[in-house]
Amino acid sequence: MGRYVVGVDLGTLSGRAVVVDVADGAERGSAVHAYRHGVVTERLPGGPALPPGWALQDPADHVEVLRTAVPAAVRAAGIDPTQVVGVGLDATSCTVLPTRADGTPLAELPELRDRPHAWPKLWKHHSAQRQAHRINALAAERGEPWLARYGGRVSAEWQLAKALEVLEEDPEVFRHADRWVETADWLVRLLCGRETRNASAAGFKGLCQDGSSPAPDFLAALHPELPDLLPKVDGPLLPPAARAGALTAEAAGWTGLPAGIAVAAGAIDAHVTAAAARSVAPGRMLAVLGTSTCLIMNGDTCHEVPGVCGVVEGGVTAGRWGYEAGQSGVGDIFAWYVDRALPASYAAEAARRGMPVQDLLDSLAADQPVGGHGLLALDWHSGNRSVLMDHELSGVLVGLTLATRPEEIWRALLEATAFGARTVVEAFEAAGVAVDELTAAGGLTANRLLLRIYADVLRRPLHVLDAAHPAALGAAIHAAVAAGAYPDVETASAAMGAKHRETWHPDPARAAAYDDLYADYRNLHDHFGRGGTNILHRLNTRRHQSHPSP
Amino acid sequence: MGRYVVGVDLGTLSGRAVVVDVADGAERGSAVHAYRHGVVTERLPGGPALPPGWALQDPADHVEVLRTAVPAAVRAAGIDPTQVVGVGLDATSCTVLPTRADGTPLAELPELRDRPHAWPKLWKHHSAQRQAHRINALAAERGEPWLARYGGRVSAEWQLAKALEVLEEDPEVFRHADRWVETADWLVRLLCGRETRNASAAGFKGLCQDGSSPAPDFLAALHPELPDLLPKVDGPLLPPAARAGALTAEAAGWTGLPAGIAVAAGAIDAHVTAAAARSVAPGRMLAVLGTSTCLIMNGDTCHEVPGVCGVVEGGVTAGRWGYEAGQSGVGDIFAWYVDRALPASYAAEAARRGMPVQDLLDSLAADQPVGGHGLLALDWHSGNRSVLMDHELSGVLVGLTLATRPEEIWRALLEATAFGARTVVEAFEAAGVAVDELTAAGGLTANRLLLRIYADVLRRPLHVLDAAHPAALGAAIHAAVAAGAYPDVETASAAMGAKHRETWHPDPARAAAYDDLYADYRNLHDHFGRGGTNILHRLNTRRHQSHPSP
Repeated sequence: MGRYVVGVDLGTLSGRAVVVDVADGAERGSAVHAYRHGVVTERLPGGPALPPGWALQDPADHVEVLRTAVPAAVRAAGIDPTQVVGVGLDATSCTVLPTRADGTPLAELPELRDRPHAWPKLWKHHSAQRQAHRINALAAERGEPWLARYGGRVSAEWQLAKALEVLEEDPEVFRHADRWVETADWLVRLLCGRETRNASAAGFKGLCQDGSSPAPDFLAALHPELPDLLPKVDGPLLPPAARAGALTAEAAGWTGLPAGIAVAAGAIDAHVTAAAARSVAPGRMLAVLGTSTCLIMNGDTCHEVPGVCGVVEGGVTAGRWGYEAGQSGVGDIFAWYVDRALPASYAAEAARRGMPVQDLLDSLAADQPVGGHGLLALDWHSGNRSVLMDHELSGVLVGLTLATRPEEIWRALLEATAFGARTVVEAFEAAGVAVDELTAAGGLTANRLLLRIYADVLRRPLHVLDAAHPAALGAAIHAAVAAGAYPDVETASAAMGAKHRETWHPDPARAAAYDDLYADYRNLHDHFGRGGTNILHRLNTRRHQSHPSP
Repeated sequence: MGRYVVGVDLGTLSGRAVVVDVADGAERGSAVHAYRHGVVTERLPGGPALPPGWALQDPADHVEVLRTAVPAAVRAAGIDPTQVVGVGLDATSCTVLPTRADGTPLAELPELRDRPHAWPKLWKHHSAQRQAHRINALAAERGEPWLARYGGRVSAEWQLAKALEVLEEDPEVFRHADRWVETADWLVRLLCGRETRNASAAGFKGLCQDGSSPAPDFLAALHPELPDLLPKVDGPLLPPAARAGALTAEAAGWTGLPAGIAVAAGAIDAHVTAAAARSVAPGRMLAVLGTSTCLIMNGDTCHEVPGVCGVVEGGVTAGRWGYEAGQSGVGDIFAWYVDRALPASYAAEAARRGMPVQDLLDSLAADQPVGGHGLLALDWHSGNRSVLMDHELSGVLVGLTLATRPEEIWRALLEATAFGARTVVEAFEAAGVAVDELTAAGGLTANRLLLRIYADVLRRPLHVLDAAHPAALGAAIHAAVAAGAYPDVETASAAMGAKHRETWHPDPARAAAYDDLYADYRNLHDHFGRGGTNILHRLNTRRHQSHPSP
């Protein structure tokens, strides 16, 4: 009789659960559950309007995935639930929420439900950039040793900037929060009854380095009350794939899994995907191409890479130095284009052909010669996470003519994200961190034109992971380790990880043409992002000034 | 019994005729005829594909307007055609075609019909920019005295650059052309049997200054055969509103007008509109807001304004120095947006409300605070005519975020054209040419949001002309002078010109906020247009290299 593990992945718009064979990682069943409230950006459900840059989630939507997708996946697998030996989960990060000491989210208290700062702030909540600027300036001034571990700049997306934003804009909410916790850790507590902190999020998003958070006097210099954050984020730090506890009887009741099985430590989605992609050995970079892009890699040594958003010991896999970098908007930019800029005639033509509009655009754009559209874009519609680490930046599109066609803009946006990825890979290599192999995973690997462009722009073979739910598979691999089925993630990854579906090799002529376009991308990148002009910041300031504060 | 004149306006997409009372300019009837082939940009009808930047027209489409719209306007007026005493016509310019000595367009010869260079090149045919660069460089090197009259740079849109393009790319067509003639002059010849050259087009588009074209040795230095252009463009030069001849019996047959009536000299659409707007006195600027924008003004003295595309003695009104400047893309950019980037949901909502999509966009954008969208655009989708005079430039849009909405991009495009207009007005004033009054005419004056933005951005009252067909009215005024009903255009304009429909005054708070945005526009303008970066030129070069030559 087989043994199984369940992996749960809480994404940006939906969650999914998979049931996986412990022996070989084969997926036996899966289920997806879309969040009822999706991403809350314009106004709280039944509540006030939100300023630009906000992105919240409803904690109940995450719980709903555990309640519905987990039992549905077990049913789909057709297995006996008693054969499940462990459960693991990952979530987006830094997606962080304030709770009471008992774990109740402040957003679920009737008296705070209409207060935007009581809600979980999604990773792409970008309105704490001013706080991030101050954190960076102070850390640089004081020579804080941890700053270089984050490439010289911490992000507005992370725990500290978001906490400072709450404290400054709604101090009552800050004071009501006994805990300031990552969504993955909060959900693990729901499963096993014990709050733990996963070392990945604590390190990459909580500025916890060598076991310590930033010092109280540093925090006090930002705001006199900010040292009060420290007791809200303390707790046992667990390495990746550690056993956080046993599934409680109550949680067993609503998940349908056996009480007492191992619950793995919380994890970050892209990080567990490295295990699913068998990319945990040093030098193997994983690119998770989705709403945003995460670039994950392990190394044997610690290099501080300028502009790369983190190196954390044991942050991806226990015993290695984990590196993370990323692009804050990728699939999100494509979705924006389809939603806000695709003309009706194209929507109608796609419907006529019975294909998704993305496929229509790809088919029209695929045969264009490189540079034939005359366009160049900066992929900053959701700010820039690497290497500029600045969420007050915004997207740029140059080269428009009266002849410019929709598929040409579409292709320029695909290319811009490829140029963004190359910028990050080059930053690693310039800092002495070799990238020996590159594997792509995530929803955007369905787009073959995108993969071809990435291989051409990055000038290296691009392997593509063959997994329908790679993050959930990674969470399941971590569950297998937590359950004691494997001694460590490396071993479990080798046994259970997915294979390559295909490999894209760069075309020399296209790659050479893209070298020229990439040089212009870097020119625009540095002009708009590194002080050639501050126009994007001034535009952002005016935009915020014309909207009310929450 | 009254006396009437007929004015005919040949626009970019359609032509129109009006029947106007000689006494007071009241319109008695009108008719519009859309060109069968519109603007030919992608391939010749039934013929080969065209490279980027091309824009041609079918000469038969222009003749069709005379054949159908003129009799239709007379019928609509319900007048006795024998009461018509004169006819005048204007056309876009520089819209120029090669013909045989007898006036037959080369494009109508069966053996040349499939040769793109045999066709009339519309004003916005922009692929002769390389030729224009060489003309400018050589004229500067030789210190040609006429160069400063064109602000220091001649345009790729004009007669010489287009002729050199034909000579270099299809010399056989160049050699077959006995005449190289403006569309307006070619049509006047059809009416009165005599080819004449209107001084406006000869001066503003043909580089004819103080009675002379550029010298043969200058032309020879560009191409050994180019001096052969001179006999193709010679002929009697007629001042505005001069009598070119009498309507022939043959033309009377197909227009329905009386043989022998006065036919006025050909004219440029925006220039005759100054008469319709009673803007012929010095310091009164007329802005014709349409597909493109023309800014027209008379002065008593000659100032050479850097970047402004021309000053010609008697070029607008006999006895004055005429100034012309303009923006090569205005309504064209808005049309591009609606056609290529307006999402289906907006098209559906406009249909549901029973309104044009432009009105829906305006209504959604109207209440935004200035700068609230966080966007800034450069209005160069069709290149830049003033003050950079460079058709290898292209449009730029910065400040895009995942929250950017269609009506925000729409408004940023409206604003960009207003900033472009301010750039030109400031160039006039910086050169000592005072702009005392500003009147808007043209199709875009139907857009009230646009008018409000222009008044705010330009920081001056904006009068709006009350005329349905202002250029055709202007052509009719010129016809009245040619027929001897008035001694000159000033007098005719005062009697027959249209009144102001309304005046928009700037709002001080919005105007101040636009000052800030305009400073950023100028920053982007100079970076992309004045050598801060040559990215737009490189993108344009790559775009052309990837398309075949004609």
